[in-house]
Amino acid sequence: MKKSNYEKLNLSLLTDLPELMMSNAFFKNGFVDTIAHFDLYFRNIPDNGGFVIMAGLQQVIEFLENFHFSDDDIEYLRSQNLDESFLKYLKEFEFKCDIRAVPEGTPVFKNEPILTVRGPIIQAQIIETMLIQIISHQSLIATKANRIVRACDGREVIEIGSRRAHGAFSAIYGAKSAYIAGCNSTCCTIAGKQFSIPLFSMMEHSWVQLYKTELEAFNAYAKAFPDNCVIAVDTYNVLKSGVPNAIKCFDETLKPIGARPLAIRIDSGDITYLSKKARKMLDDGGYPDCQIMASNSLDERLIRDMIAQGAKVDMYGVGERMLTSMSAPILDVVYKLVAIEENDKKIPKIKISENVTKITTPGVKKVWRLFDRENGKAIADVLTFDDETIDESVPFELFDPEYTWKRKQVENFVARPLLKDIFIDGKCVYRDLSLYEIREYCNHQIDTLWEEVLRFEYPHKFYVDLSEKLWKQKQILLDELSMRPKSI
Amino acid sequence: MKKSNYEKLNLSLLTDLPELMMSNAFFKNGFVDTIAHFDLYFRNIPDNGGFVIMAGLQQVIEFLENFHFSDDDIEYLRSQNLDESFLKYLKEFEFKCDIRAVPEGTPVFKNEPILTVRGPIIQAQIIETMLIQIISHQSLIATKANRIVRACDGREVIEIGSRRAHGAFSAIYGAKSAYIAGCNSTCCTIAGKQFSIPLFSMMEHSWVQLYKTELEAFNAYAKAFPDNCVIAVDTYNVLKSGVPNAIKCFDETLKPIGARPLAIRIDSGDITYLSKKARKMLDDGGYPDCQIMASNSLDERLIRDMIAQGAKVDMYGVGERMLTSMSAPILDVVYKLVAIEENDKKIPKIKISENVTKITTPGVKKVWRLFDRENGKAIADVLTFDDETIDESVPFELFDPEYTWKRKQVENFVARPLLKDIFIDGKCVYRDLSLYEIREYCNHQIDTLWEEVLRFEYPHKFYVDLSEKLWKQKQILLDELSMRPKSI
Repeated sequence: MKKSNYEKLNLSLLTDLPELMMSNAFFKNGFVDTIAHFDLYFRNIPDNGGFVIMAGLQQVIEFLENFHFSDDDIEYLRSQNLDESFLKYLKEFEFKCDIRAVPEGTPVFKNEPILTVRGPIIQAQIIETMLIQIISHQSLIATKANRIVRACDGREVIEIGSRRAHGAFSAIYGAKSAYIAGCNSTCCTIAGKQFSIPLFSMMEHSWVQLYKTELEAFNAYAKAFPDNCVIAVDTYNVLKSGVPNAIKCFDETLKPIGARPLAIRIDSGDITYLSKKARKMLDDGGYPDCQIMASNSLDERLIRDMIAQGAKVDMYGVGERMLTSMSAPILDVVYKLVAIEENDKKIPKIKISENVTKITTPGVKKVWRLFDRENGKAIADVLTFDDETIDESVPFELFDPEYTWKRKQVENFVARPLLKDIFIDGKCVYRDLSLYEIREYCNHQIDTLWEEVLRFEYPHKFYVDLSEKLWKQKQILLDELSMRPKSI
Repeated sequence: MKKSNYEKLNLSLLTDLPELMMSNAFFKNGFVDTIAHFDLYFRNIPDNGGFVIMAGLQQVIEFLENFHFSDDDIEYLRSQNLDESFLKYLKEFEFKCDIRAVPEGTPVFKNEPILTVRGPIIQAQIIETMLIQIISHQSLIATKANRIVRACDGREVIEIGSRRAHGAFSAIYGAKSAYIAGCNSTCCTIAGKQFSIPLFSMMEHSWVQLYKTELEAFNAYAKAFPDNCVIAVDTYNVLKSGVPNAIKCFDETLKPIGARPLAIRIDSGDITYLSKKARKMLDDGGYPDCQIMASNSLDERLIRDMIAQGAKVDMYGVGERMLTSMSAPILDVVYKLVAIEENDKKIPKIKISENVTKITTPGVKKVWRLFDRENGKAIADVLTFDDETIDESVPFELFDPEYTWKRKQVENFVARPLLKDIFIDGKCVYRDLSLYEIREYCNHQIDTLWEEVLRFEYPHKFYVDLSEKLWKQKQILLDELSMRPKSI
């Protein structure tokens, strides 16, 4: 995939100061060669949905390939009282980690590692902030966009949210994530350029205001864009003025040159009602092929209601509520130490907490997805130690890691590991797909989920289980900690 | 103020394609010298609050001073079928607009212009997306951060949200906006470097996990950071393990060298309860000066409740809910054509709508803020035509533009224009304050608001009124449009 020009931007200092400070101390305290393992995962699915779509991996790769500290950065860190020897280490920094991750576009579930890092603890620590930020942001938007795309049920979805995004990267990577998740096009020109996403254009209200009359404005627009004519009909009054003028304009300006209008656009008022009336007017006027585009603070819930009430909308322009994931603007990705290597042995580490959901699952893991051999549907994910395999030739017993009496035998399945090698010893080994391929892959992967998991409200909970060995290890560490009578 | 290194990043193509397409057609249709006036304003206050804090102006200035299209950009636009003559215009683009804006840090209200653009319509149009995005994002975060700062009521607030921000700019400019609005420091290293925001560091859980015992970990940390010792006490169990070990560590490691701990940090569990117990333990242990820092998905509502319930928290670390403005992640800034110049006359333009709140106020305007001469409090904002002045020597009658029978006489006031010249004929003429000065200014300006406007829930609505002349002009245009029997 084409590299973005954001490479120029050195974001290596976009790390929380504590990571740098702790790394400085690790360095001083002799941990410079300590190999640590971190898991990146999330603890909740936004909008109480059934799954999250993994996104952001391409930017992660770019970020890590470009990771370095400039003289400027070092100078600044010196002013923050970091040690000279550590500053020298940062200046000569050479990335040495192994990174594995779930490919972009894959549906993923809570509490399973979607990216893992193995490497010198200092290195693994100072990339934490950006890894979390990139994956949590882009996965959040991809997940939301996919909800919207599914609500539109085959109708076109156009991403129009740049202006209300949270800064430039929110717009650019938001457009990208939305496209991966199934949107058809974007209005964000720079994202179109950067990632070859199809662009969309349409009339805006200022065009109409510039002319003396609405009809004059429409005719001028149709003349300028005969092949791509999307007329905004709501500057004054949709049904009394906008639609009749649009039809007049199509007759006067497009018909003589043999062109057909693409769409009219309604951006205010009760779009469900207006679209039905406008549809009839367009049909009666000889333009049954002219589509109707709707926009105005739409999201999956509103769109679903509109469709249920018979709205005659062919194209949905969705902006701010998609690019900010307004109803659920946070994906709570975390990055936790799960093991330390000592004399070539991996010592599992745990963090417990009074909030049970914050207790980590220790150990270096693999993630398996079990698919039904008959229908290709995903059955469950299973976390195992990285030296375990799942034998497909015998039935596999799933059990709930919390309610362990909930057990289920699975037969006739394929078990596929989800985590792919991305970096080995600091070098990228991953063959990146094109954005279009990722979008196709994403669509295909979602097809492997049961309808029950795809439900918007109260979806069926997809199983993410632990292998017996992993579960036992976690219990041992928990017991050890709870047995200590007082302080640790 | 120091320029950011994001200058390198050419964001001129971060514009919605429709702006470019319409501009191309304006160009072809002879509007290249048409002078247009646009108002930028917002229509709703997030969280149903009483005001918004204007932010983003510095990035607007940087963006516009750097505005240009690279050969690459032109090449890409060529592929989108823009005309050669227009591409030539873009390539030789020279910014010629006049821009006025309300200074950063000023509290502002809905439906008043906070930034205005006068210039060739093509230029005014193709900067729309970025102007809206920068101002809406940064003002949103400043507004949210100020709510959180006010909830903390003098206690320290540390911005820790980088990892859950919506991309790099959301983290960097979010940290900046939060600081303007009153936060004390940030963990975002790159924002510290870029904008000289004070940085904050603390222990994170991975530090504790790395060591065999919690006490060993604490001692190593205290040794490494004796002057800046913030100990995370919730890796295992706050009251049974974390706090007792912290006290032991202070005794063993800090006391002998005459150092005092800065704080303990609680990031999980019921912080209100835990902080009271921990406070007593620290006091009894001889550390009444050791502060307590809290974090864990905090926002202004939770903090207010915690304080009401007597939480003993001295420092609040606030992250994702501030940097995404989670409870209200959109500030609905719009940018509307309000006038066109014809033969040196400004012809007001209106956009009506079936959504009443979407009707624009036509005309080129000034914004005045009336302050009480006695106590310095802000009384109301008044929009007038730009050739009007407000005579302070006679009483001024305010009236509600919607409920015009609501009238109020104001006497003994000062009327200050809010919009300052930022660009004249494309050249920046504004003397930028330092970030610290903006922060001070912001704090002072908020002091001019009545307590009733500062209320979190159901605040008093600050008056934003129209001059009689402006109000009448709007009525004339509305009547003209509604009188036309059918289509326009």
